[in-house]
Amino acid sequence: MPRLAKKDVLRADQFSKDEIALIMELATTYETALSEGRVLDVMKGLVLSTLFYEPSTRTRLSFETAMLRLGGKVISVAEAKSSSASKGESLHDTIKTVEGYADVIVLRHPQIGSAEEAAKATDKPVLNAGDGAGQHPTQSLLDFYTITKEKGTVDGQTVVLAGDLKNGRTVHSLALLLADYDVRFVFVAPDGLRMPREIVDRLKANGTDVKETEDLTDGLAEGDVLYMTRIQRERFADPAEYDRLKDSYVLTLALLEKAKPGISVMHPLPRVNEISEDMDDYSGAAYFRQAANGVPIRMALLALVCGRA
Amino acid sequence: MPRLAKKDVLRADQFSKDEIALIMELATTYETALSEGRVLDVMKGLVLSTLFYEPSTRTRLSFETAMLRLGGKVISVAEAKSSSASKGESLHDTIKTVEGYADVIVLRHPQIGSAEEAAKATDKPVLNAGDGAGQHPTQSLLDFYTITKEKGTVDGQTVVLAGDLKNGRTVHSLALLLADYDVRFVFVAPDGLRMPREIVDRLKANGTDVKETEDLTDGLAEGDVLYMTRIQRERFADPAEYDRLKDSYVLTLALLEKAKPGISVMHPLPRVNEISEDMDDYSGAAYFRQAANGVPIRMALLALVCGRA
Amino acid sequence: MPRLAKKDVLRADQFSKDEIALIMELATTYETALSEGRVLDVMKGLVLSTLFYEPSTRTRLSFETAMLRLGGKVISVAEAKSSSASKGESLHDTIKTVEGYADVIVLRHPQIGSAEEAAKATDKPVLNAGDGAGQHPTQSLLDFYTITKEKGTVDGQTVVLAGDLKNGRTVHSLALLLADYDVRFVFVAPDGLRMPREIVDRLKANGTDVKETEDLTDGLAEGDVLYMTRIQRERFADPAEYDRLKDSYVLTLALLEKAKPGISVMHPLPRVNEISEDMDDYSGAAYFRQAANGVPIRMALLALVCGRA
Repeated sequence: MPRLAKKDVLRADQFSKDEIALIMELATTYETALSEGRVLDVMKGLVLSTLFYEPSTRTRLSFETAMLRLGGKVISVAEAKSSSASKGESLHDTIKTVEGYADVIVLRHPQIGSAEEAAKATDKPVLNAGDGAGQHPTQSLLDFYTITKEKGTVDGQTVVLAGDLKNGRTVHSLALLLADYDVRFVFVAPDGLRMPREIVDRLKANGTDVKETEDLTDGLAEGDVLYMTRIQRERFADPAEYDRLKDSYVLTLALLEKAKPGISVMHPLPRVNEISEDMDDYSGAAYFRQAANGVPIRMALLALVCGRA
Repeated sequence: MPRLAKKDVLRADQFSKDEIALIMELATTYETALSEGRVLDVMKGLVLSTLFYEPSTRTRLSFETAMLRLGGKVISVAEAKSSSASKGESLHDTIKTVEGYADVIVLRHPQIGSAEEAAKATDKPVLNAGDGAGQHPTQSLLDFYTITKEKGTVDGQTVVLAGDLKNGRTVHSLALLLADYDVRFVFVAPDGLRMPREIVDRLKANGTDVKETEDLTDGLAEGDVLYMTRIQRERFADPAEYDRLKDSYVLTLALLEKAKPGISVMHPLPRVNEISEDMDDYSGAAYFRQAANGVPIRMALLALVCGRA
Repeated sequence: MPRLAKKDVLRADQFSKDEIALIMELATTYETALSEGRVLDVMKGLVLSTLFYEPSTRTRLSFETAMLRLGGKVISVAEAKSSSASKGESLHDTIKTVEGYADVIVLRHPQIGSAEEAAKATDKPVLNAGDGAGQHPTQSLLDFYTITKEKGTVDGQTVVLAGDLKNGRTVHSLALLLADYDVRFVFVAPDGLRMPREIVDRLKANGTDVKETEDLTDGLAEGDVLYMTRIQRERFADPAEYDRLKDSYVLTLALLEKAKPGISVMHPLPRVNEISEDMDDYSGAAYFRQAANGVPIRMALLALVCGRA
């Protein structure tokens, strides 16, 4: 029976390449089973507790769907802040209580390090569904899975990360996760929102080919995969700078003309206006498939941490 | 395998008479099965997502119960406004995401036309659980089912609709749904809250017998079915007019003396004071049975749109 | 098939000693089954509705877990106040509606007597999950179960109740529940927060040995079980009095040196600071096991009231 080295899923960089391969393989197996209409009972008799201190419909529903489609059951706290925490209970105590009910816990919490704290409090597996500006490992894994599915493999791909690369937890984790593979990067960001120096340095020290540019069309021309993120006005010290740049980071069908044929377009969602709606008809628009990939990936992780894979 | 013409349930008037007969028959089958204690697995392996942008305990619980009693599973968003929508995501994008998780979607949303918009965004079936002042088709169908169960058939019945007939989405839909049957109407409403002219005209053009009055006792004397709705003080331009009328639209056991024997009393709930509590002991008080009828009706609709009927 | 005398679970003092023995025995059976990894289907085909007019993650999750682990299904209202009640619906009407969906109802409501009101409105079983300053019977039963498990039996034990004994619904119910057994009490409370006179009188009239003291170390020295509760600053008329006392009601490992060896420490949770975190490593620290005991106790009660035990 395959096992992960750690009992929890806390960080995107905790996995070996073998573990990632295992997760991808298992996700594929489950996705195939579902597409064939098979009803699974892998998690029969087990209960998942979701515990969301910040609302996140997408992440919560996708974890709950994963558990239900594996034949497990779910107890759900969509708004944990209005509950025991408001009576002054520590996260540690809440976890010690919930471990008495559930077999596995999914936690979303605004504070960095909260998932690690929760994992230490219990022998039950904890899955980090986002700890503020910290980690969101299941997002990185579903991003990885999406590239694999869209392109056949991550190896040999040029991956363009575009938008706010300074503040984006998602793009940091994905870059580091892909660094162990044969991937070339193009980072497209305005000057003040560039990928943090330490991440670029780690990639280069690792021998990864990294190109940085302010111009989205540069990235489009070279990318096999374009991963868009949102640029928020409030991140700019100078509003004029925002106005100058904002339109150049909106992907439209017109702009796509300048892209490498077959480019896959990803986005962690929700999008606001950084990908125009006319893009949705483009066959390489992968962002909604990417969201759906959250289900098989989370099925694989749930089954693995519970020893049911 | 029986099928509905459309993939979605969006409007009360989308169904043919054959389809309505099919829905009623299937609801009866399921209700009988449940009353015999049978455990159904019609929806085994399927997941319903409820998505409520307005709270509605009654409607949400009854859809969820329907899905669970059919052997399906549920992911639930009781307060969608505190989620992705607050990050600026369009309804279209939310639906494109949720279709990646669920096999069928139930939507409650304050804006007219939102259910139609959602249905266009996805190939999965969407059931409209109320789109603001627009449609609430499952309510109309359960109302129809209730009349059938209470009276044996809708044909030949005199149906009295009373209260605020101007603003009541429920009574508009029900009137139009019944118009294809051998039903006679009495509309009881204060002057400013009468049934909209275009609905009355459509009914009359259709050959339906319609009587309008301000006097509830008129309706009571003739009605086989009395459908009460709430009159809200804030609907009146002149408060004195409200004070003059309000008591005449409160149904009490005393007032029931003037009613046709065996009259069935319905109400979409919640009631505030328009039906007195002493009415609850009256054998023809059907409003709580009416609420319960939401379960078999929604079971039938879920099974039909998912091709499991 | 074993049965309880009443259809509902409304008060801690409604049960005979035989009934309590039955509940404890059944809870033990279910707990053993779960620990052996058995999947139960005792409640197959049944639906529980939780209805929480006050948030209480602990109680709600533990009831929902109990139902799911028995093979039943759950419809959940975590925040009932934002729903029909806000449209002016009475509790009576809400219950009459929910009984049309669910086979059993768990109610948490801020008003004393609300559970009783709900129980009268329906023939379906209602379980009181706390009615304001009133009753919280499932808490008392899980407390009883915890003492039984930690000590083998309640008989012959000296039970120390410490903290705010004036305002604590939990300690009142537990004291009265234990009064029918061979239990000796030590009540430890500051002068203004003593156990209400009528409860002490009832216990003494019953022949129960009761000692009252302000000094926690007195209780520690004699107690087989120490049940801590929180002392809230706002309960004190004189803040200086609070400051004088507050530290003497904080249990630490250092203070535990003065306790009877093997003392079991309980707490209804959430704790704030009345038990220091270093206590968690003490083998007799039973409070998280106590929370977990809520599941088998609620399984037993659900199965019994539904006639499935």
